[in-house]
Amino acid sequence: MSRKINFNAGPAALPLPALERAREEMLDFAGSGMSVMEHSHRGKEYEGVHDEAIALVRELLGVPSSYEVLLLQGGATALFAQIPMNLLDKGKTAQYLITGAWGEKALGEAKLVSALFGANVAVQSLGVGEGKEKKYTRVPAPSEVKVDPGASYLHITSNETIHGVEFNVDGSRGFPATGAVPLVADMSSDFLWRPFDITKFGIAYAGAQKNIGPSGVVVVVVSKELVEKGRKDIPKIWQFRTHAENKSLYNTPPTFGVYMVRNVLSWLKGQGGLVKVEEVNRKKASRLYGVIDKNPQFFRSPVEKESRSVMNVVFRLPSEELEATFIAEAKKAGMVGLKGHRSVGGIRVSMYNAASYEWVDTLAGFMEEFARVK
Amino acid sequence: MSRKINFNAGPAALPLPALERAREEMLDFAGSGMSVMEHSHRGKEYEGVHDEAIALVRELLGVPSSYEVLLLQGGATALFAQIPMNLLDKGKTAQYLITGAWGEKALGEAKLVSALFGANVAVQSLGVGEGKEKKYTRVPAPSEVKVDPGASYLHITSNETIHGVEFNVDGSRGFPATGAVPLVADMSSDFLWRPFDITKFGIAYAGAQKNIGPSGVVVVVVSKELVEKGRKDIPKIWQFRTHAENKSLYNTPPTFGVYMVRNVLSWLKGQGGLVKVEEVNRKKASRLYGVIDKNPQFFRSPVEKESRSVMNVVFRLPSEELEATFIAEAKKAGMVGLKGHRSVGGIRVSMYNAASYEWVDTLAGFMEEFARVK
Repeated sequence: MSRKINFNAGPAALPLPALERAREEMLDFAGSGMSVMEHSHRGKEYEGVHDEAIALVRELLGVPSSYEVLLLQGGATALFAQIPMNLLDKGKTAQYLITGAWGEKALGEAKLVSALFGANVAVQSLGVGEGKEKKYTRVPAPSEVKVDPGASYLHITSNETIHGVEFNVDGSRGFPATGAVPLVADMSSDFLWRPFDITKFGIAYAGAQKNIGPSGVVVVVVSKELVEKGRKDIPKIWQFRTHAENKSLYNTPPTFGVYMVRNVLSWLKGQGGLVKVEEVNRKKASRLYGVIDKNPQFFRSPVEKESRSVMNVVFRLPSEELEATFIAEAKKAGMVGLKGHRSVGGIRVSMYNAASYEWVDTLAGFMEEFARVK
Repeated sequence: MSRKINFNAGPAALPLPALERAREEMLDFAGSGMSVMEHSHRGKEYEGVHDEAIALVRELLGVPSSYEVLLLQGGATALFAQIPMNLLDKGKTAQYLITGAWGEKALGEAKLVSALFGANVAVQSLGVGEGKEKKYTRVPAPSEVKVDPGASYLHITSNETIHGVEFNVDGSRGFPATGAVPLVADMSSDFLWRPFDITKFGIAYAGAQKNIGPSGVVVVVVSKELVEKGRKDIPKIWQFRTHAENKSLYNTPPTFGVYMVRNVLSWLKGQGGLVKVEEVNRKKASRLYGVIDKNPQFFRSPVEKESRSVMNVVFRLPSEELEATFIAEAKKAGMVGLKGHRSVGGIRVSMYNAASYEWVDTLAGFMEEFARVK
């Protein structure tokens, strides 16, 4: 078996040691004579894994005690609905800042919830054009964001996987400063690849299947203040307080998924934590964008330079035929997952934490050669 | 490694071949050079697994084309909220027939949803006593169930894991006959251990972590009529139609969980399907209840004989001290998961499809010896 170089957008490559650990322990977890999947979620063996996963998120990100770390199900898509259900109320407004397709999806659910509750949604979109022609090529500068001081929260998508645009931690495309309005971020595709100050957020949430594990687990870091403010008249399963009060063991968690998140975060810590992994991720991005910038006629990036994503690099080739050839030849060379999202076409390179510099360097070399001979 | 005899209530024992297959393929699924967890949910490799899991549910249970088979997240607990959200409306009534703790949980969510929607909930409970003293020892005969012909649906829990009471397919404790009112059943702990006629149900749903897989996946078999009737003003992620229209690929599914469900159902089919597996399950129950009935002073079953669960056998010993000794000595003999639920105490033997007759026979022998010497 030769392991593929995997640039999938998510579910995505996982660190080999995390998978090897799972293989090793598949029939006998921690000497228990059972798979971790066969353990009760109320037993000490699984609870150790569960607690360690939560503790690793806290440690890696530096989450203070004024925040809860929840492990939920349903992916970011379920959170698109749960967040307004917890935080919206009659006559109140939620603000959505849209920088791509995932923000649009979050907005769609917020509109349904606000209609049910008699609340409102205010939208600021960076999209240019309409319908299928609509393009997203940048995130706003903080000064461009118009914050309504009466809003219940302001929602952003910190990285748009399909369009390859991402907020910076600081700087010219930094996170918006929202003052007393809670900033809520879907970080599914850029969670834990770099340090950031969680205290600037009311909620940061992420489906695990890109940077931190398999699909089926969503990590929600939420301030205790927002947990307490949450509505009590919605189903218990969707109240953040239910899970905060029960250490995310109110109902049966996806135990194997949490176990894999533990394995991945444990590996991440072994790499030196977020500061170290950011260095590697920036080196990867620098290598790949370097090839694009040296061949601007061949590799055309639609994204504003200041808004470029470190996680998802999107570009076009001179023709769709060349794009198909590129994908096919890369596949022959052992590289998969390079096709752009069906809604935008082109090429997309997703390089989350588990994609090594060597993988990206191999692709960069392939791109240089491809541009030279075609 | 010696494999434990595992009577956990859920997550529970999985068939060894299903786990061995997962171990074998952990780093290289179907010769792809990647784990199944690393594949895109939109790629043909994962889609093959996904389609096979759905097809196996259809084949094993004989699901006609007038029903959808959905693979969702959040466990049965999420369905407790999703079902009334889809099916309730202002001024309408949902009927809940309560035969244990899981029915109570489902009812709790239905009450919250009905309050939000201006709807009503009608309750018929088999519980005797109040609060912590409340006992559930039987399911009703069909003639005892009062069906409101105007109800939006009638909800039952086909098997109550904690109390060990279960509806029969037919007979003196058969499923209620609800006429034109859709019968909705939480079958989490007794799905696919025996054949049953799905066309008598509007919805049958089950968390996978007992009979058919690991936690993190919930299977929902729902009539197309109810899918179409469902509300359109609730969040899309919780509309059944969203998942029906997208083959349960609207958002990223829990891919490894679905893969394990596939492995388990594939094993189940190899065992000869539901008719064969029912024979084994009845033989297991007969062996275990046989020991209880021969030692009624020592093993006290609180459950009415006609309502006895084939999946979860609950009983008490003469004292809590003896119960503790029983659990400890069984553990020394390699048997785990025998402690009753914390809310009721005593002993509980959960013996889903993956628990072999040999396991149950070993326990039965242990019980006979324990009763003899204590």
